[in-house]
Amino acid sequence: MNFSLEKSIEILERTPLVLQTMLQNISDDWTSNTEGEETWSVYDVIGHLIYGEKTDWMPRAEIILSDKPDKTFESFDRFAQFEENKGKPLQELLNEFILLRQKNIELLRSKKLTNKYLEQKGIHPAFGEVTLAQLISTWVVHDLNHIAQISRVMAKQYKQDVGPWIAYLKILQS
Amino acid sequence: MNFSLEKSIEILERTPLVLQTMLQNISDDWTSNTEGEETWSVYDVIGHLIYGEKTDWMPRAEIILSDKPDKTFESFDRFAQFEENKGKPLQELLNEFILLRQKNIELLRSKKLTNKYLEQKGIHPAFGEVTLAQLISTWVVHDLNHIAQISRVMAKQYKQDVGPWIAYLKILQS
Repeated sequence: MNFSLEKSIEILERTPLVLQTMLQNISDDWTSNTEGEETWSVYDVIGHLIYGEKTDWMPRAEIILSDKPDKTFESFDRFAQFEENKGKPLQELLNEFILLRQKNIELLRSKKLTNKYLEQKGIHPAFGEVTLAQLISTWVVHDLNHIAQISRVMAKQYKQDVGPWIAYLKILQS
Repeated sequence: MNFSLEKSIEILERTPLVLQTMLQNISDDWTSNTEGEETWSVYDVIGHLIYGEKTDWMPRAEIILSDKPDKTFESFDRFAQFEENKGKPLQELLNEFILLRQKNIELLRSKKLTNKYLEQKGIHPAFGEVTLAQLISTWVVHDLNHIAQISRVMAKQYKQDVGPWIAYLKILQS
């Protein structure tokens, strides 16, 4: 399959509801534990997704679509959520993510992006020139990456409990 | 965290709804494509989950809890879904999975399993002795494994579209 704006939005609009369905009212043990030192809990991942809505995806799209002579993106802080969310309950983060994503999809739709716009470019601080279609594709894959990560972090809480079946469960071996 | 029946059910009861939220009314391109030769589509994975509800998890729990002298499990056919589901729309499979899982959770709850029962054993055809708690833990991790797999299969449909960002997206590298 090839990139399509509508098919991208199909994923982007589902992600917050998928996470809500997975995580609402679930025991803290599933969401506050990590995969080990220097890794994220489910709670940390939701914070990271919120920060992306605020500072990464649509702000970068706006830079690409702007008339600015310098279209270099700001760097994205992968650790901002540790300060930003201190003390907030998970459900508050989920609600925040749902609202921010909804607004960003409305904003994205409001641009009425044709192929001409999707081929416009910005400057990524590490990679150089990237297109708007690549940015939106990455937004989609980034969502799916974090759904997979959340599933893995939760699965690992039972690593000791599955006994010999660990041999069949690839998710516990990564 | 350690194994707990209630926390296991928290995951088991959410999985069909998570998949429904992810996949209902989504374009076929996301669910009928695979990761490459000899790999499964999202559609194939849902069929595999249905077959597990019918022949694997609770039937094996019943063997463990039975008075039979021989508690050897039947082998599980990982490819049965290719024949069983021919021609069925994805939504029909999702509905079937939701119903089967609901019934299996009711059946599991009806057993009122105390620790004594959770330590009872069956014979796995490859591993030998396994406990009921290990079987239920594996059921949970197996769900999460397939949610992660579905996310990965979908993400890979955009492997060519993310451009240089592929370097940051681990899910595209596995």
